[in-house]
Amino acid sequence: MESTKIDFLYLNEQDMIKAGVLDASMCIQVMGETMALLSKGDYIMGGPNHNAHGIMLEFPKKSYIPNFPLNNSRDRRFIAMPAYLGGRFHIAGQKWYGSNGRNAQHGLPRSILMVSLNDVETGIPIAYMSANLLSAMRTGAMPGLAAKLLARKDSKVLSIVGPGAINKACTMAIMSCFPNIETVKIKGSSPESKTAKKMKKFVESRYFNVKNIKICSTLEEAIRGADIVSEAASVKEGQWPKYEREWFKPGAVIISASTFNMEHKSIMDIKKVVDDYSMYEDYSNEDPVVFDKNLNRKPTGCMGEDFVNMVKDGLIERKSIINLGDIVTGKAPGRTSDDEVILVAIEGLPIEDVAWGYECYQNALKKGLGIKLNLWDRSAII
Amino acid sequence: MESTKIDFLYLNEQDMIKAGVLDASMCIQVMGETMALLSKGDYIMGGPNHNAHGIMLEFPKKSYIPNFPLNNSRDRRFIAMPAYLGGRFHIAGQKWYGSNGRNAQHGLPRSILMVSLNDVETGIPIAYMSANLLSAMRTGAMPGLAAKLLARKDSKVLSIVGPGAINKACTMAIMSCFPNIETVKIKGSSPESKTAKKMKKFVESRYFNVKNIKICSTLEEAIRGADIVSEAASVKEGQWPKYEREWFKPGAVIISASTFNMEHKSIMDIKKVVDDYSMYEDYSNEDPVVFDKNLNRKPTGCMGEDFVNMVKDGLIERKSIINLGDIVTGKAPGRTSDDEVILVAIEGLPIEDVAWGYECYQNALKKGLGIKLNLWDRSAII
Repeated sequence: MESTKIDFLYLNEQDMIKAGVLDASMCIQVMGETMALLSKGDYIMGGPNHNAHGIMLEFPKKSYIPNFPLNNSRDRRFIAMPAYLGGRFHIAGQKWYGSNGRNAQHGLPRSILMVSLNDVETGIPIAYMSANLLSAMRTGAMPGLAAKLLARKDSKVLSIVGPGAINKACTMAIMSCFPNIETVKIKGSSPESKTAKKMKKFVESRYFNVKNIKICSTLEEAIRGADIVSEAASVKEGQWPKYEREWFKPGAVIISASTFNMEHKSIMDIKKVVDDYSMYEDYSNEDPVVFDKNLNRKPTGCMGEDFVNMVKDGLIERKSIINLGDIVTGKAPGRTSDDEVILVAIEGLPIEDVAWGYECYQNALKKGLGIKLNLWDRSAII
Repeated sequence: MESTKIDFLYLNEQDMIKAGVLDASMCIQVMGETMALLSKGDYIMGGPNHNAHGIMLEFPKKSYIPNFPLNNSRDRRFIAMPAYLGGRFHIAGQKWYGSNGRNAQHGLPRSILMVSLNDVETGIPIAYMSANLLSAMRTGAMPGLAAKLLARKDSKVLSIVGPGAINKACTMAIMSCFPNIETVKIKGSSPESKTAKKMKKFVESRYFNVKNIKICSTLEEAIRGADIVSEAASVKEGQWPKYEREWFKPGAVIISASTFNMEHKSIMDIKKVVDDYSMYEDYSNEDPVVFDKNLNRKPTGCMGEDFVNMVKDGLIERKSIINLGDIVTGKAPGRTSDDEVILVAIEGLPIEDVAWGYECYQNALKKGLGIKLNLWDRSAII
C-alpha cells in the first residue's frame, strides 16, 4: 500500500528570492510559455466561462454595523485567483491576497499575497509560498513579453506612467529585453512625487546605458516620443489618466497594466492586443453599462474591457483584438509595419501566478530551500 | 517605527485535533454564532451579490489536449471559498480544496482542504491550517444546529441517508444535542454498502443509548418514522434520491446537506429553512432552466436552489423560506407545532470555515500548538 503521508514545502520571501523569483528574463520566458498554453486552451480558470480573474471580497463604502471593514482606502479588497495550467506545469493552484492602501502607514506592502500549488489529480498541497515578489514579477513580465514581441527592435525611449512597485517590475522586464534604451521618462502623480524620484534613482542605479532620465509634468510630455509606454497607475475610480491619440509616436507600443481612458472612436484603427479576451468579456458582462451626456458609453478604466465594449457597440470587430498568446504561437501576426501603433491591455491572470510559482518551486527543490511541512502521516478518520 | 516582521501559525491535522476541531458541541455553538452574524449582515462573501459559495475550477468531460484533467470521477473539482466574518471573529479567510472521487484508491480522503486566516485590515496571513476535519465538522454542525433548533425535543429516531464522512460529522453533531435517540436507520447505496456497515459500527461504538441500528434497503424504509433525517449522499448528477411527501412522519425535520429530489408541488405547504437564501439565488441565476416533458421545471439536486426556483415559478412566496440565522436571532419563528414537518437545505458557506478555523486557531494559540512560520522580517523592495 502506498504511503498516505503528505508533506509540502513552505517558501518565505527570502526563500523565493533565493529561488530566483526576481529573474525578470526567466519570468518573461515562463510568461511566454503560459500565454502559449492559453492560446492552445491548455488551462482552466474559475467561473462559468472558465476564464475568470478570480473572486473578490468587496467591502461597502459605509455600514451601520460597528467595526465593519469599509472600502475607504485604495485597493481595499481580498481576491482568490484559482487556476489549472497544463503543459509541463500540469498543476493547480491559486493566489490569495488582501490589499489596503493604508498598509504603507504600517510599513507594509499594499498587498500581501500567498500562492498555493496543488497536485491537480488529488488536490494534495505541494507548496505554499510568499507571493509578493512572485506577483510583482509576473505582472511586470507580461508587459516585458508584450514589448519583446511587439515593440520596434530599435526602441530607444521608454515611458513609465505610474512609477510604483508594479512598474518597477515592468521596467525590469522591459529593460531585460531592450538593454539599449537611452531615454526613460517618468510620470508620477506630480513632478514632486516621491515614487517618481525613487523610480529615477532605481533606473540610474541599474541601467547604465540610459543617458536621459526625465520626470515629466504632464501625461502628454511622457507619452510623446516614447517607443514603449508602460502604464501601471494606481488612481481612484474614474480618475484614470486620459490619453490622446495624437500623442502616440508612429511605431509606439502602449502597454496598460490596468488604468486607461481614451476616446473609443480615436482608437478604432489601432492594433489591439490583450492577455485574455474571454476574461474581459466576463468583466463587461458583469459591469453596468454607463453612458455620458452625449450617449457615448463611458470608459471603464480597463483597456481590455473597453475593447470588448467597442466590439459590443459595433465600433470594431471581435477578430481585430488579438490574444498575446496567439502571437507567441504564431496563430496571429505581431507587428506588421514599422509605423504601426499597438495598444496592449494586460490585467493579470491566475495561470501566471501558478506558472511562475511552479518555476520558483522547482528551483527551490533543486536548491533545497524552504521548510518541509507535514500535513499528516495518515489522514484522520472521524 | 512598528515592526514589519510577519509570522503566522501553521497547524497540521494532528494540531487541529489537539486544538479541538472534533468538538461537535462547541462547533454547533460557533455555527449558531455564525448564522446569527449572517442574520445581522455582519459578513461578506464573494461575488457580485456578496453571498457566493466560492469559485470553482470545473474540468471538462473530455478534451483533445493530451494529459488534460478530466471530470471523470465523482466530485472532481477545485474550489476557493473566501469570506469575511464580523462580530468577535472580525477576520478574513478562505478555504481552498481539491476533490477527486479516485483519491480513495490512493488511501487519501476524497477532498484535501486547507484554510487560511488573514487580518482583515492588512491582509497579513495569521494562520494556515489543515481543514479536512474543520470542514467535515462545520458541515456536520450545521445539521446539528438545525436539528437542535427545529427537531422535536422528544425525537427518538434518526435516519442517516448517505452514510459517508460528512454524515458521520452530522451524526456526531446531532447526537450531541439528542443523546436520547434510541433508533438509528442507515441508508447506503445498497444494504451491503461498506460505508453503511462502517456507520453502523460507528454508532454502536459511540452512542450506547441507541438500542436499534438498522441498515435499510429502501429510502422509504429509512424515512418513514424518522424524527430527524440527515441526508448527505454523494451521487452522480441527476441520480439524486427522490423523497415522497407521504413518507414524512408528522413533526419530522428533514435536513439535506446537498442532494435532493422531490416533486415541487408536494412540498408547497411544508416549512422551508435554508442556510443562506441569497447563495441559492446565485445558483439559480447561474444554472440553466431545464424542463421535463410535462413542462415542469426539473429538480436541480440542490434543495435550496429548488426552493428559489419554486419562488420564481410562483409556487411559494419568498417570505416562506427562512434563513436559519433568523431563527437563531429570533427574527423568524422556529417550529410552531408538534406536527409541523420542516425541510432544511444546507449547502455550506465560507463564513463557517472562517468561524471554525478561527476558533481552533484561538485554541491552538492558548495551547501553544503548531509551527510558527516567518513570512519576512521586512518585506523586500524590488
